[in-house]
Amino acid sequence: MIHFECDYACGAHPAVMQALMMSNEEQHCGYSEDECCENARQLIRQLCQSPDAAVHFVVGGTQANLLVIKAGLRSFEGVLCADTGHINVHETGAVEATGHKVLPLPPVDGKINAQQVREAVMLQREDASHEHIVRPAMVYISHPTEIGTLYTREELTALSDTCHELGLSLFVDGARLGYGLAADEQVDLPFLASVSDAFYIGGTKCGLLFGEAIVITNPAIARDFRYHIKQRGAMLAKGRLFGVQFEAMLKDNLYVEASRKANRQAQQIKQAFMDKGYSLFCDTVANQIFIVLPNEAIAALKEKYVITYWGKVDEQHAAVRLVTSVCTRDEDVAALLSDIAAL
Amino acid sequence: MIHFECDYACGAHPAVMQALMMSNEEQHCGYSEDECCENARQLIRQLCQSPDAAVHFVVGGTQANLLVIKAGLRSFEGVLCADTGHINVHETGAVEATGHKVLPLPPVDGKINAQQVREAVMLQREDASHEHIVRPAMVYISHPTEIGTLYTREELTALSDTCHELGLSLFVDGARLGYGLAADEQVDLPFLASVSDAFYIGGTKCGLLFGEAIVITNPAIARDFRYHIKQRGAMLAKGRLFGVQFEAMLKDNLYVEASRKANRQAQQIKQAFMDKGYSLFCDTVANQIFIVLPNEAIAALKEKYVITYWGKVDEQHAAVRLVTSVCTRDEDVAALLSDIAAL
Amino acid sequence: MIHFECDYACGAHPAVMQALMMSNEEQHCGYSEDECCENARQLIRQLCQSPDAAVHFVVGGTQANLLVIKAGLRSFEGVLCADTGHINVHETGAVEATGHKVLPLPPVDGKINAQQVREAVMLQREDASHEHIVRPAMVYISHPTEIGTLYTREELTALSDTCHELGLSLFVDGARLGYGLAADEQVDLPFLASVSDAFYIGGTKCGLLFGEAIVITNPAIARDFRYHIKQRGAMLAKGRLFGVQFEAMLKDNLYVEASRKANRQAQQIKQAFMDKGYSLFCDTVANQIFIVLPNEAIAALKEKYVITYWGKVDEQHAAVRLVTSVCTRDEDVAALLSDIAAL
Amino acid sequence: MIHFECDYACGAHPAVMQALMMSNEEQHCGYSEDECCENARQLIRQLCQSPDAAVHFVVGGTQANLLVIKAGLRSFEGVLCADTGHINVHETGAVEATGHKVLPLPPVDGKINAQQVREAVMLQREDASHEHIVRPAMVYISHPTEIGTLYTREELTALSDTCHELGLSLFVDGARLGYGLAADEQVDLPFLASVSDAFYIGGTKCGLLFGEAIVITNPAIARDFRYHIKQRGAMLAKGRLFGVQFEAMLKDNLYVEASRKANRQAQQIKQAFMDKGYSLFCDTVANQIFIVLPNEAIAALKEKYVITYWGKVDEQHAAVRLVTSVCTRDEDVAALLSDIAAL
Repeated sequence: MIHFECDYACGAHPAVMQALMMSNEEQHCGYSEDECCENARQLIRQLCQSPDAAVHFVVGGTQANLLVIKAGLRSFEGVLCADTGHINVHETGAVEATGHKVLPLPPVDGKINAQQVREAVMLQREDASHEHIVRPAMVYISHPTEIGTLYTREELTALSDTCHELGLSLFVDGARLGYGLAADEQVDLPFLASVSDAFYIGGTKCGLLFGEAIVITNPAIARDFRYHIKQRGAMLAKGRLFGVQFEAMLKDNLYVEASRKANRQAQQIKQAFMDKGYSLFCDTVANQIFIVLPNEAIAALKEKYVITYWGKVDEQHAAVRLVTSVCTRDEDVAALLSDIAAL
Repeated sequence: MIHFECDYACGAHPAVMQALMMSNEEQHCGYSEDECCENARQLIRQLCQSPDAAVHFVVGGTQANLLVIKAGLRSFEGVLCADTGHINVHETGAVEATGHKVLPLPPVDGKINAQQVREAVMLQREDASHEHIVRPAMVYISHPTEIGTLYTREELTALSDTCHELGLSLFVDGARLGYGLAADEQVDLPFLASVSDAFYIGGTKCGLLFGEAIVITNPAIARDFRYHIKQRGAMLAKGRLFGVQFEAMLKDNLYVEASRKANRQAQQIKQAFMDKGYSLFCDTVANQIFIVLPNEAIAALKEKYVITYWGKVDEQHAAVRLVTSVCTRDEDVAALLSDIAAL
Repeated sequence: MIHFECDYACGAHPAVMQALMMSNEEQHCGYSEDECCENARQLIRQLCQSPDAAVHFVVGGTQANLLVIKAGLRSFEGVLCADTGHINVHETGAVEATGHKVLPLPPVDGKINAQQVREAVMLQREDASHEHIVRPAMVYISHPTEIGTLYTREELTALSDTCHELGLSLFVDGARLGYGLAADEQVDLPFLASVSDAFYIGGTKCGLLFGEAIVITNPAIARDFRYHIKQRGAMLAKGRLFGVQFEAMLKDNLYVEASRKANRQAQQIKQAFMDKGYSLFCDTVANQIFIVLPNEAIAALKEKYVITYWGKVDEQHAAVRLVTSVCTRDEDVAALLSDIAAL
Repeated sequence: MIHFECDYACGAHPAVMQALMMSNEEQHCGYSEDECCENARQLIRQLCQSPDAAVHFVVGGTQANLLVIKAGLRSFEGVLCADTGHINVHETGAVEATGHKVLPLPPVDGKINAQQVREAVMLQREDASHEHIVRPAMVYISHPTEIGTLYTREELTALSDTCHELGLSLFVDGARLGYGLAADEQVDLPFLASVSDAFYIGGTKCGLLFGEAIVITNPAIARDFRYHIKQRGAMLAKGRLFGVQFEAMLKDNLYVEASRKANRQAQQIKQAFMDKGYSLFCDTVANQIFIVLPNEAIAALKEKYVITYWGKVDEQHAAVRLVTSVCTRDEDVAALLSDIAAL
C-alpha cells in the first residue's frame, strides 16, 4: 500500500537521518541543555529575527498545544479556537485534562477572525454574571488550518491586534508550518514571531522523526516553561535529538524547500482529479487536498492507496483527503497520477 | 568531556540506529498501529510469557509513570512509593498534576516492603475518618531503585501478594530494567509480568533513542489505555519508531547482554575506587555506583568527566554517582580507570 | 427594591427556619452521618420509590454537577449537554476544572433529544480516530431547563433508553425541580428516579437556605461518593443542617405545594404582560417567565424591581426574565401586577 | 450522648440564629454581593486593621484551603506544611485534586518553623535538577494547629519574614481561630493580617452554622478570586447568609468572648483529668485537650460521651481528644467533670 493519508507515514528526511547517524556516538548532557539544542535554538531565533524568543522542543503537537495553553492561562481562563480546531476535536480532551475549557467559534474556510474574537470576549466581559463564565484569554489557530487553508498576513495582523488590544495572547499551531511557509511567502517566520505570542515550527509532519520547536515571544508564557515541560512528561532525556534534527532540517532553507516539493506533488494530484472532472471539497494550496469522489472511485483507489475518508457528501459521493509530505516519493505520485487518469 | 553522569548521554545502540536507517523509507500507518509495533508487542509478550498482556509504547519514563498511575487510580485514590521514588521527587509533580496524591513511605536500601504497604493501607481503612483520607490503591516501585539496589524475588512476591490481598495494584518502573535483568537473573521478565499489574521495559536508558514499553497484565488498567495516552500528549505520530527500536534491541537477548556489559563496566569502576581505599555510599550490582570521595578527588575527576554530585557527606567528603550505559565505550572506561588509579 | 430576578433572593421557607431554630441546640455527629440526615434520606427514598438509591447532600448546584459528573466519567470521557446548559455556560468551567470536556449540542426549546445523543455517540465511535476524540459517556439535562421549559415523560424515556442502550448515564440537574414537579405531575420523583442514573432535588432555589439532595440510582456512580464529596470541599461539617431542612420541606408535600404557589404567581405575572399585549420570548409553565418588552417599559420596571436582562431583541426591545420562588410574597406580586397594568 | 468529639456538633450561637431569623424575609441579590456581606467585609477589614484586604466567604475549611492554595500557586509549584497538616492528611487529597503537590515537613509540637522552610526552599533551588522538582511557593500552617498548639508572635514573624524574603506566601488556616485569639492575645487579627498573605477567620467551628471568612492581603492571590470560588463550586447562592452570620458573631467581640468561654470549659476538663492523675498527651491552652487514659476509663466515658480516639499509647492506654465549642453547654461540662471525678 502507498500512503497518502497523512504526513507522518515515513521516517525522516535523509538529511535528518544522516545527522542522527553521524552524531550517534557523541556524548551530551540531557534534557535539551546540550550544544546541539543550543545551536538549533540560535538558528531558529535568527530565522525568526527574534533574538529574545524562548525556544523549546517537545516530541509532538498535542504536547506543544497543552503546554503553551496551560502556561498561558490562569485556572479559570479558556482558549478560543475554531470548532474544527485540533485541540477541540482530535486531542481526546488534552486541554480540558489540564483544567481549561476550549471555547469553540464557528470558522469560515477553517479560519476564525478578529471580529469573532472581539465579540466572544466582550460577551463575557459585559455579562453581569461574568464571574460565572470562563474568561477567554488566548486564541488558538492552526496555520495551515485543519482543512489546509492559510491565514493571510492581513488576517493574522487583525487577529494579533485584537488579541493584544483585549489582553489575550495568540498561539499558532504550526504542525504543518513548513507547507504553509512554502505556499505563501508573505507569512514567514519573522512575521509569525511578530504577530503571535507563541507558535511552533512543526517537525514531525515536516521531515523529522519527531519534534516541534515552540517559539515563545511573550515572556509571561515563556517563564519557567521547562517546569511545565517536565511536569507534563514532555521533557526528552536525549534532548540532543531535537537539536540535531532541527538543525539539519532548518539550515540552508531545507525545511521550506522540501515542503515546497510536497506542495507541488499535492497540487499535481489535485489537478489530476480536476482534469478528470471531479470537484474539490475545499480548495487548498499546500500539501493537503480534499476531493469529492464517487464511491466507486474511492473503492478503486483504496485497493492500492491509503487515503483519508473525510465525510459523506451524498449517497453516491464522499470527500477524501490526500496528503503529501517531505518524504513522499516521486514514483508514488507518478503511480497515483496514472491511476487517477485511469479512473 | 566524558559522560558518566547518566545513562542517556549518547544516542542509541548501533543495532537500533541501523534498524532505524534501514526502515526509514518504509511507509506505515501512524500512532503505533503499524506492523513494526505489532511485531515488537508480540516479541515482548513472548519474552514475558504473557500472551494476553497489553503492551503500549511511550517516549519517556515520566509519561509511563503518570499514565499507568492515572489509569490505575480512581480520583480520590493515591499511590504508595518510597519517599525517594522518582514520582515523589523528580517529576515536578507530574502525578499530582493528574490529580492524585503520592503517599511516601520511608525506604530501606531504596526499597519499600510488604509490611509497610499493609500498615499504610490498614491505617487508612481503620480510621473513623477514612473518607477524609486519600485511599492507597497502588504501589509504585522502581527496579533497579533510585540508588541502584535490586528487589529480590522474595521481596517482590511479598509485595505482590500483599497488594493483591488488599486490592491494590503493583506497578514497577523499569526505566533501567535492562541493567536489573542482567544483574539478577532471578527477577526476569516472566516473573515481573507475573507479580506486577503493570511494569515497563525501559528503552531510553537501555540503548534506544527513546521509548518505554509498558506491559500491563491487569485488564482494569489496560482498558482504553490508548485514550489515556492520547489525552496526555504521549501518542507518537510516527509510532513505528518504537516498534523498530524495541525489536532491534530485544531480539537475540541484546537488551540484556548489552546491559550486562554496562554493569561490568560500572563494577570495574567501583572496584577501582575501592582499590584506592574509597568507601561506597551504598553498594550496587548494576550500572550505577555511589562512592564517597574527598572533595579534591571530585574536583580532579570533574576536569575530564561529567559525574553526578549526590550529596555532602562531611566538610571534606561528598558522595558522587557514576553511571554506565549500553552505549558506554570501553576506551572511556579505560581512561577513567587509569585516572582513578592516579588520584 | 423588590426582587424577581432569581429564586434565591430571600431566606428559607418559614417551616425550614422553624425546624432549624428548634433543633439548634441538638448535638449530632458531623458530616451528614447523623440521624436528621438519615431521616431525610429515608424520606427521599420513599418519595422516589427507590429503596436502594444513594442520597447525598451538598450545598449548591455547581457542586452537585461537578461531583456527579466527575464520579460518573473516566478521565477521557465527556458529558453531552445543551449548549445553553448551566455546566457549559455558567459554572466558570467547573467541569473542565475536574479534567472533563463538556460536549455541547444545539437545543430546541432548551432541550436536547435522544436522536442527538445517538448521533453524537455514533460519530465518535465510528470515527477511525475515535481514540483521539473525547468519548461521550454521560448526558446532562436540566429539568426545568435554563429557559424554563419542561421535558415530557416521553422525551425523558427516550433519552433514558438511548443512553442506557449506548452505555451512557443520564444525569438530571434539578436545581428548580420543585417548580417542575408542580407544573407537570407526569414527571414525578419516582419517574425521575427510574429514568435517570442520578438527579438532584434542588433545595437552594426551592425553599431551603441551601442544599441539594443528590439521588443516585446507578451503583457505579454512587460507589465511594463521599470520598468525592470530601475531595472537592463539598462535605459540610454541620451536615445535620441538610437533614433538618430537607425533612421540613419534603414532608406533607410542602416542597411541591409551595412550588405550585410560586408557579401560579409567575403565571399571573405572565398573563398580566400578555394582557397588556406584550409577547413572550418563550412560553413557560413554571416559575420563570420570559417577556419581550420595550426598552422604556424595562426602565420603568427597574425603578422598583430587580429583574434579569436576558438579551437584546431589536433596537427598541429586549427580553427580560422574571422569577418567583417559594418565598415570593403575594403583596410583591400584587404590586407588580398593578405596575404592569399601569405600564 | 453528649458530644465532646468536635466543635461542630451543635448548631449556631443564639446570636447567629437570631440574626438569621430576623433577616429571613429580606430580599438581597445573590452570590455575596449584597449589603449584609459588604457590612461584614467592612467589619472584618476594621478588625484586621487592613482597609485594603480582600474578604471572601466560603462554606467550609477544605474549600478555603484549596481555593487559596490554587489561587496562590503556579501549576508546577507546591505548598509546604506540617506532615500532620489538615491539607496533607484529612482532605482526601483536595489540594492534589487541583494539581498541586503538598510538601510535608516534620513538625515539632504541631508547628513548622522558618528554618525548615528555608532549607526546603534552598534544597530545591540549588539542585542541578531543580526543574524536575516541585518548587515550594507557599507555606500553609494552622493556628491553632491540629494538636491545639499555638504559634507565638515570634514564630509567626520569623515564618513570615523567611517566606517573603524567599518569595513564598504564607497562608494561615484559621478554622479554630476564635479559640486561638482568645487564648493568646498577642496573636490578634491585625497581627495575623500583617504577617500572612492570606488567612481565614473560622466560622463553622466558632459559632456559625457554616462559613469561613478568607482575608487576603496579597493582591496577587486576591486577583479574580471570585472566579476561583465559582469554578470550584464554592459560591453560595444565598451569600447573604455569610454576612448575617459573621456580622452577628464578630460585632461586640462576641467571637472572641464566646471562644474564651469554650477555652475555659476545656481547661476545666483538662484540670479535672490532671487532678485524677492522668497525664496529658500534649498540653494545650485553647478548646482542644489531649489526655492519656486507661482503656477502661475510655470505655466508661464512652457510655455517655462522644470523644475522639487519638491513638494507642500502650496496651493499657490510649490518647483521646475532647473538644469544646462556642455552643458547649455548662451543664454538659458539669456532668463530665463529675463523671471524671468518679472515674
